[in-house]
Formats: sequence, structure tokens, C-alpha cells
Amino acid sequence: MKKLYLMTPGPTPVPEAVMLEMAKPIIHHRTAQFQEIIKQVEEDLKYVFQTKNDVLIFASSGTGAMEAAVCNLLSAQDTVIVVRTGKFGERWTEICKAYGVKSVDIDIEWGYAADPKIIEDALKKEPNAKAVFVTLCETSTGAEINTKAIADITSKTKAVLVVDAISGLGACQLKTDEWGVDVVVSGSQKGLMIPPGLGFVSVSPKAWELVKQSKSPKYYFDFVASKKALDKTDTPYTPAITLIIGLAKALKMIKEETIEAVWSRHAKMAQATRAAVVAMGLELFAPTAPSAAVTPVKAPAGIDGEQIVKLLKSKYGIWVAGGQAQLKGKVFRIAHLGYMTATDILMTISALEMVLVELGVKIKQGAGIAAAQQELAKK
Amino acid sequence: MKKLYLMTPGPTPVPEAVMLEMAKPIIHHRTAQFQEIIKQVEEDLKYVFQTKNDVLIFASSGTGAMEAAVCNLLSAQDTVIVVRTGKFGERWTEICKAYGVKSVDIDIEWGYAADPKIIEDALKKEPNAKAVFVTLCETSTGAEINTKAIADITSKTKAVLVVDAISGLGACQLKTDEWGVDVVVSGSQKGLMIPPGLGFVSVSPKAWELVKQSKSPKYYFDFVASKKALDKTDTPYTPAITLIIGLAKALKMIKEETIEAVWSRHAKMAQATRAAVVAMGLELFAPTAPSAAVTPVKAPAGIDGEQIVKLLKSKYGIWVAGGQAQLKGKVFRIAHLGYMTATDILMTISALEMVLVELGVKIKQGAGIAAAQQELAKK
Repeated sequence: MKKLYLMTPGPTPVPEAVMLEMAKPIIHHRTAQFQEIIKQVEEDLKYVFQTKNDVLIFASSGTGAMEAAVCNLLSAQDTVIVVRTGKFGERWTEICKAYGVKSVDIDIEWGYAADPKIIEDALKKEPNAKAVFVTLCETSTGAEINTKAIADITSKTKAVLVVDAISGLGACQLKTDEWGVDVVVSGSQKGLMIPPGLGFVSVSPKAWELVKQSKSPKYYFDFVASKKALDKTDTPYTPAITLIIGLAKALKMIKEETIEAVWSRHAKMAQATRAAVVAMGLELFAPTAPSAAVTPVKAPAGIDGEQIVKLLKSKYGIWVAGGQAQLKGKVFRIAHLGYMTATDILMTISALEMVLVELGVKIKQGAGIAAAQQELAKK
Repeated sequence: MKKLYLMTPGPTPVPEAVMLEMAKPIIHHRTAQFQEIIKQVEEDLKYVFQTKNDVLIFASSGTGAMEAAVCNLLSAQDTVIVVRTGKFGERWTEICKAYGVKSVDIDIEWGYAADPKIIEDALKKEPNAKAVFVTLCETSTGAEINTKAIADITSKTKAVLVVDAISGLGACQLKTDEWGVDVVVSGSQKGLMIPPGLGFVSVSPKAWELVKQSKSPKYYFDFVASKKALDKTDTPYTPAITLIIGLAKALKMIKEETIEAVWSRHAKMAQATRAAVVAMGLELFAPTAPSAAVTPVKAPAGIDGEQIVKLLKSKYGIWVAGGQAQLKGKVFRIAHLGYMTATDILMTISALEMVLVELGVKIKQGAGIAAAQQELAKK
């Protein structure tokens, strides 16, 4: 019998109740029944985003929502600052380039978060910068930025702060309005616990001012059209009906748990994972800026990280992620994101110990799992 | 007990087998298992599109795929011809406008198809036009264009023919390669029988030449990135995994039925619907260019079309569509599209007769259903 356990940072497991909800006969979107769902989803998204701003919904992957942010806020020749902490930070630059937006790129060594001071200095050098782009949780390196400190800086400038929270939302603490974050971009297949296919963007009043000035071409991702439809509890084009129905259910689960408890659960799973791998004698890839969503671990000397990924999957049915881009083979990444619990961490760490032993890595069996247990038992 | 029967032109009913396939635990997209699905889906899409060209897949609604066609084929200041047979034809103009593309709009009276001669003349007047945009089945009016005749004309010019086959694909005959159609745009929630959230674009070699010249900004919908990924049986960004898994199943059903049989089934359902409403004494909205996908019927004198829609739904659970834009209240639209059979038509026509009698419309009860039966019994 094959039983699979998804421990990847997106797609993440979809709760059984959500799967069944989405498997119901499809309904038409131009109905009071679907409007009721949109209304509830919008209210609950605002809760998860911790904002009073509209959260626009697109049938697209997270990258589509990232592009939406760029083409709605900016015009060709505008200057922006892009803080690049990994592969996904680089995507902001690529999208800006496609639209002729000049990006001043701040490259942070992979595995580290950006010192907010660097952003402050960059904004002083580029006082006309219209936006600062950051990645809340850089899925490729596991580093989490200090959003609050960065928002403190951008709030005092005319630049808007745009946060890619695709893998961060619903895992890492994010207080959009309280901290003064202008634009939060996210996707469906991470902390929101549903399959991929929906993108989200929350837009602050300061950001709407930029939208008014933007001359970039856009149609499908047009914020104004999207907002106009949303005001009538509608979508401008046919929405991804089943995914939105699944989202309604998943958001209800988050609300029942409360967002604070969701954050704590992720923080606890992350702490347990880190304590465990360190106790095993392995090294964390991003020890100074560990995220609540995913923990990349350096492959032990002489071992290909991909081998660990493969063995965990073939022997124990556990899918962790390998390294991306320059980290391929060098790290493996354990997600603690979305529909996952302490029990999943116990299972993953236990299996990891067995795999390492099988690969001939010298570890003290049980040390990792004991460390995880101790962290998880803490109040 | 409430039992619902979706007879709308999108979303259309999703086969139970497809729903259950999509309800299975989610799998990761960077796996051999998912690559196998992508490979099969691509092969089967080519069969349904009747083309050897690549069919690019996007996580978006059909409108996203329409925008993809415009921003990948054209640049600002290019001239194109847009044949507008209804609401969806107008969308081509709007998208072109967003990208600074000059559209020469040919407005056809709603309910009629475009005489190919008009397109031939327009191309003579605009010899530099890079593309001709048409709508295979104009969902708002039910009119179907003569794609073959139009392709005969565009093939002899340097303009590419771009067909919005969102509601037409898998219902109306479309022989992409044999007829010389360059670009076919479609969506998932119509003839392909899955929920909304996927857009498709097939691209001919002649169209790829235009892609090379296009200077419009794009990222998420970039054909080159999409094709590059497809060549490695991959997608550039996280795909809408569950929808693609459902699509694989739905395409398998179409292939088993054969595309020719699918076209015949739709043609037969459409003929039966038309014969029935005419026999009842009602009037077709698009009698000269009836489509195989949807039949709009004029509301009888003194009756609001919306009333018919409402009663069909509340009393019999049958959802037909109302009129869109200027046709609101004036027509109701019966779809025969996707996962629908002759039996669904019999049920709809029977219920329609009862609703008309209840509304006081003078019809000969049974006349409509008898006409439908006769059409359906024909070999």
C-alpha cells in the first residue's frame, strides 16, 4: 500500500473537507448562492490578510498576482527597489523588466534576510522610488524578512511596500494594516490550504493612488475592473468557481482556529523542526532568519540532498522539497505550512533519522526526535 | 428535495468521474507522475483542437487566454481587424485598446454571423493588418461564424486568424490545421467539461513569427516562456494542478467518444432544441447562423425572458441562461454544451412547455417536445 504525506511548501495538503466541498456539482457564478460565497470569502480573506483593504481575487497562479501588482502600480520608466533574498525575489525584477520599470536590485546573500537599514539607505538614494518589493518568506532559502521594520521605513516615504506573501501568508505573522503594508500578494496552494489556481492582492489607499497613475497595459489583471466587480460581489470574468468554494471552506477553518493560533502552530512546527535537525548534527541553511513556513537543511557532507528527498519519498511516502536553482542537491526543505500539524513533524523527523542512518550519516538515533518532542511540549 | 440541472453555456456540468478525480489528494507538480499527466493532456488537447501546433495552458479564465493572444502577437500601433458579432467580440477590441493596438472593428448585427466577404474587403482596405479576430460561437447571441471560409481568406494574406473558441471548442466543428486557423483560444468550463480556471491557446508557425516581433509587455502569459516549459513537459509557474487532473479525465472521455461524435451530438441537440422552440411558436434569436453550443430564444411578446429563466430554475431545477447586455430580458439561452445529452434536451423542452403554459403563453402542449423527439430520432 502506498500512502503519501505532502510536506512540500506548495502545493500543500488540501484538507479532506475542502476536497469534498470542491467535488460537489458545480454551480453557476452569476447567482445569489455564489455571491454569498464571494462575500464570505472576501470578509475572511481580509481577516487572514489582517486588513480592511480590498483583497482582489484572480484566477491565476501567484506569479500572475505578482505581475498584477507591477502592471497596476507602475509605468515604464518608474523606479522601484527590489530586495532579492532568493529565487522569488528575482522574479520581481524580471516582471519589472518586462514592463520597462527600472529596478534597483538589492541582492542579499541566500539564506539571510535583508537588514531594514539597507532598504532605508536605498530609499534615501532613490527618493523617487515608487515601490519597494520584498518576499515575506523566500521559499527557496527559508529566510523570513522583518516586514514590520521595513514597513516602518516605507511608511515614511512615498514608496509603497509590496510584499510577496505567497508562501508566507497564513504561516508567518503578517499584520498588514497595523504595520502599514500597502500591497500583499498571495496564492492559494500554501497557507490557504487549497489547490493552486487563485492569486490574491490586497491594495491600500496609498497603493490605489499609484494605480490611478499607472500607464502600463493590462486587462485581465486590471485592479480597477476587479474592484468594480468586487463592489457588486462579482468578478469581472468567470471565476475559478470550485477553487473559490474550496477557499470558503478553508478560510472558515482558519477563522475557527484563529489567525493567531495558526501563526503559533506554524512557529511551533518550525521551532521543532529546527531543534530536531540541529540535534541530529545537521546544519540549518537560514539560521539567522528562519521562517515559520519552511526549513531548508544543508545536506550532510558527501550526501546529495536529492538522495534524501528521494529516499524519504520512496521508503516513507514523505515528500519534502529539494533545493532550487543554485541550491539543488545542497539542501532539502521541510515545509510546515498549511494543513500540517505537530504530528506531521514528528513523523517527518523520525523518518529523516532513518533515512540518514541508511545513507551512512553518523547521527545519534532518537536525538532529533527528542529535541522536536521537547519543543512541541513547550507551552 | 432540490435537484439541479445545469443547462448554461458555461460553467457546464462537470462529469461525476471528473469531479471525483479532482477530489483525490493533491499531488506535487514537479514529479514524473504530473509530467505524465501534462504529456497526455497536451496530446489530447491537440486532438480536440485538431492541430499539430502546441496548445499552451494557463491558469486563468478564458479572458486571460484572449489577452495572452493579443499581448504575444502584437505591439502598440499595430493594426488588426476585429469582427464583432456580440459581447465577446467587443472584448477583443477592449483588450487591443489596452495594449495600444489599433482595431478596425466590423460590427455585425447581433444574432448574425459575419459574411466572409466583409472580412476579405476589410483586409484589402487594411493590407497591413496583422491579425483578424473572430468569435467561433458568440455565446451572447448564439451565432456561429463560418471559420473555414474566413480561414480561406486570411490564409492568403499576411494576417493571422485568431479564433475565440471559448464556448465553441468541443461543440462547433473546428478543424484548426485543415482549415488554416492560426490561433485558437479556449477555456475549461464549456465543451471541455471541467470547472473554470484554465485557459488555452494554440499557436501556428505563422503566428509564432508574429510572437517574435511583438513588443508588448508580458510575463505570466508569455508564450515563449510557456512553450519553453512545455517542451520540458512542465509549466513556467505552478499550474492549477487539480483542474489539469480533471482535464486529463475529461479529454479521455472526449477521445473515447471521438471528436466527430462529439460534434454530431452537439449538432443534434442544437437541431432538436431549435425545432422544438419553433414548433412551440417561439422565435429563434439567431436563425441564420445557429450554433451547436447554445440556442438563444426570443421571449414571447409581453413576457420577460428573466421570468422564464427563474421559473425553470425554481420549479424544475433547470438553469438556462438569461440574455446578456442589450439582450437582458429579451431572450433566454438554452445551452447544449459539454456534458449534456439528448435526454437533457427532452427534459428542458418539456419543462419549458410547462413554464410557458404557466406564464399564460398560448402554445400547443407537446408540440415542442414532439418536434425535438423527431429530430433526435433522425439517423
